[in-house]
Amino acid sequence: MAGIKEPLLAVPGFSWLGRNIGIKDDTPDFAVAYCERPCTAAGVFTRNNFPGAPVVVGREHLADGRLQAIVVNSKNANTATGAGGIADARRTCDLLAEALGTSPGLVLPSSTGVIGVPLPMDVLEGACRGAAGGLAPSREGLEAFARAIMTTDTRPKGISVAVDGATITGVAKGSGMIEPHMATMLAYFFTDADVPADALRSMLGRVAERSFNRVSIDTDTSTSDTAVVMANGLAGAVAPDRFEQALAEAAVYLAREIARDGEGATKLIELTVSEAPSQAAALAIAKAIVNSPLVKTAVHGADPNWGRLVMAVGKAFDHPTPLDTLRIGFGAPDAALEISAEGQAPETLERIARYLTESEILIRVQLGQGDAQETVWGCDLTEGYVKLNAEYTT
Amino acid sequence: MAGIKEPLLAVPGFSWLGRNIGIKDDTPDFAVAYCERPCTAAGVFTRNNFPGAPVVVGREHLADGRLQAIVVNSKNANTATGAGGIADARRTCDLLAEALGTSPGLVLPSSTGVIGVPLPMDVLEGACRGAAGGLAPSREGLEAFARAIMTTDTRPKGISVAVDGATITGVAKGSGMIEPHMATMLAYFFTDADVPADALRSMLGRVAERSFNRVSIDTDTSTSDTAVVMANGLAGAVAPDRFEQALAEAAVYLAREIARDGEGATKLIELTVSEAPSQAAALAIAKAIVNSPLVKTAVHGADPNWGRLVMAVGKAFDHPTPLDTLRIGFGAPDAALEISAEGQAPETLERIARYLTESEILIRVQLGQGDAQETVWGCDLTEGYVKLNAEYTT
Repeated sequence: MAGIKEPLLAVPGFSWLGRNIGIKDDTPDFAVAYCERPCTAAGVFTRNNFPGAPVVVGREHLADGRLQAIVVNSKNANTATGAGGIADARRTCDLLAEALGTSPGLVLPSSTGVIGVPLPMDVLEGACRGAAGGLAPSREGLEAFARAIMTTDTRPKGISVAVDGATITGVAKGSGMIEPHMATMLAYFFTDADVPADALRSMLGRVAERSFNRVSIDTDTSTSDTAVVMANGLAGAVAPDRFEQALAEAAVYLAREIARDGEGATKLIELTVSEAPSQAAALAIAKAIVNSPLVKTAVHGADPNWGRLVMAVGKAFDHPTPLDTLRIGFGAPDAALEISAEGQAPETLERIARYLTESEILIRVQLGQGDAQETVWGCDLTEGYVKLNAEYTT
Repeated sequence: MAGIKEPLLAVPGFSWLGRNIGIKDDTPDFAVAYCERPCTAAGVFTRNNFPGAPVVVGREHLADGRLQAIVVNSKNANTATGAGGIADARRTCDLLAEALGTSPGLVLPSSTGVIGVPLPMDVLEGACRGAAGGLAPSREGLEAFARAIMTTDTRPKGISVAVDGATITGVAKGSGMIEPHMATMLAYFFTDADVPADALRSMLGRVAERSFNRVSIDTDTSTSDTAVVMANGLAGAVAPDRFEQALAEAAVYLAREIARDGEGATKLIELTVSEAPSQAAALAIAKAIVNSPLVKTAVHGADPNWGRLVMAVGKAFDHPTPLDTLRIGFGAPDAALEISAEGQAPETLERIARYLTESEILIRVQLGQGDAQETVWGCDLTEGYVKLNAEYTT
C-alpha cells in the first residue's frame, strides 16, 4: 500500500483501534493506541503561539515521561476553543483512562481538523467508553489507527524498523498547514525497546529536527503538531545510538511520505543544499527554495527554471552567496543534469525537463562556499492544492 | 481603464514611448521615458542577493541623484547573466544616451522577464537608436510606456496626483515574484515639481516602505525590483510635506493595483493589524496572515475561516499574542462583521461569506495589546496562479 513501508509490524504489548464515530461524515475519525503497561515516552509539539487544547494537555501529561495510551480524533482540532476546549481534552483523557483502567495523566490526547469549533463531547464520550472492546494487537489494528488519524491525507503512512531485537513502528499524518517548527503534524512511534524517558526525549528532539522539521508543504504551521514516542521495554535494552538511528530512519521515511502526500501534491521534492558556509545558511537557503511558490509551480510544470531557483537562493537575504560558484543539479549526482551561471546546453535543459516529469525530484544546490549541508522535503504546488483549500470550509 | 486612476496626466517636460521590438513575441516589450532636461532623481531597489544587471548599473547611475531617461525592456530580466549582462546594461544606456543626446550616466536601465538568458542586444541596439522618433509628451505616450513594461500583468497601472501646481504621475507593473523588501517590482514617478535629490531619496524611502514594501503576491522577491522618481523642476518648488503626501498617495494606489492584479488573483486583500504591542509585531503578524496560502485560498473560496486566521496569527512565533483579546473584522468597521474566540453566530458567518465574494476584501485584525498598526496588501491564491506559473517556461 502506498505510504506504508512493508513489512509494517505490530509491536508486542501495544494494541490499536481506528473507527468512524460520526464527528463530521462517515470516514474514520477516532483512534486509540494502548499499551498493556505504562511506557516511557517523549513528545515534541507545535511552536504555533495558539497551540490546540490537546497540545496543552499533552505537554502536561508528558511532563513525567510516561504514557500508556493515546486518543486521537480527526475532523476537529479543538483549537482556539478556550477554557472549554481544555476541559474537553481533559475529559476525553478521563473517559479513556476509566475505560482502559489507567490514569488520565498517562493518556495523550490529539485532535486535528477544523479550528475554533467545540469538540462534540457526546460523541467522544460514547467512543471512549467503548474503546476497550475495539483494540487489536495486530497489523489490522495499527492500520485502522493510521487511517483514522488522517485528515486530507490520501493514504495512511507507516513504517517499522528493527533494532537489536526490538521493533520501532511509526505512523503519521499530514498533509496541509505544514511547516513544522520543533515538531510536526501527527506522528506516533511505538516500540518495545527499553529506553529511559530522558534519553527518549533528547533522541526525539534531535530526530524531529532532522526529519519532520525539514518538511514544508505550504509554509503554514499547524496548531496541532505533535510527535510522540512510547517505549514499553518488553524487548529489553538496546544500544542508544542504534535506537536513535532506527528512530531517525523511521522519522525520515514518514517525513518524506508526508511531503509526497502534501495537499494536491503530485511530486515529492528532496532538496539538498551543500557546500554552505554554515548550517544556518544551508537551512535558510533550502527553506527559501522549497517554500518558493514559483519553484514549486515550476517543478509541477516540469520546467528546468534556473531563474526561479536563483531568485529563491537570493531571497535568503541574511545569507548572500556568490552566483559564480552556484551549481544546481537534478537527480542522482552521476546523472550529469547540472546547470550553473555559465549557461546550460539546450539538450541538458531538455533532459532536466524530462527528469522533472518523474514523481520524486531530487535537487542538489551546491554553493561552493564551505562544507555545511542540509536536506529538506517538500512538494509541488498544484491547482489541486488551491481547489482543495478554496473548497474546504468551516 | 482598470488599473488607471483617471485622469492620468502627462507631466510637462517628459515624453514617453512603448512599443514591440520582438524580444519574445509581438506584445509591447520596450519602453523609454525622457525629460527635456536632467532631473533630480532617487530610487530604491531589490534586496534580493542576486540583483539583475540593470539594478547594479541603475544604482551606480543614481549615485549622483540625477537622471534624464529610463529605458525598460520586458520579457528578459538580464539577471544572473554575469559580466556580459552588466556590459549589456551599460551598452543599452550608451546607445540610448547617444540617440537622445544625453550622457549614459543619466540613463536608468530596467529589465524584467526570464532570468539567466542574455539580452538580445542586436534587437535592443536598433530600438535604442530609433527611440528619439517615437517619444510623445502625451497621455498616449505614457500609456504606451505603462503597457510595454508589463510582464504577466493583465492591465497597465497609473495614477496622477496634483500638488501645489505640480503633477506627480506614477506607473508600475507587477504581478508575480512579489514580496518586495526595501523596494518593489517596477514603479516610476515623473514630476515637474522642483525637489532636491537628497529630499527625493529620503521621501521615496519612506513612501516605498509604507506602500510597495507592504505588498505580497507570493512571498517570492524579484531580482529586478526598482522604484524611481524623477523631478524636472519645471513647476517650481512645492511644500515637502505635501509632496511626500502626494507621492505616498500615488504609491499606495499603485501598490494596491499591483496586489489586485497579482498573478491569477481575483480579489484584492487589504489587511490591517491594529492594537499591536509594537510596529514589528503588527507587521510580522500582518505578513504571516497575508502570505498564508491557507488564508489566501479561504478568501478565494469565500470561506470565513476563523481557524486559518488564528493559525496565521499564531505562526508569527516571535510575537505571541493572547487569543482572548483577538478580534477579526471584515469590511468597513461599521459593517459589524466581526468574529472572536467567543464564537460566531451562524448568521454572522453567512454574512461574512457573502462579503468574501466581493472583489476587494478588507480584513481588520485587532490584537487588543497596544496601539501599533500596519496595513498590508495581497491577493487570493487561485488555480489561475498555479496554471500560469506551471506553464510559464524558460
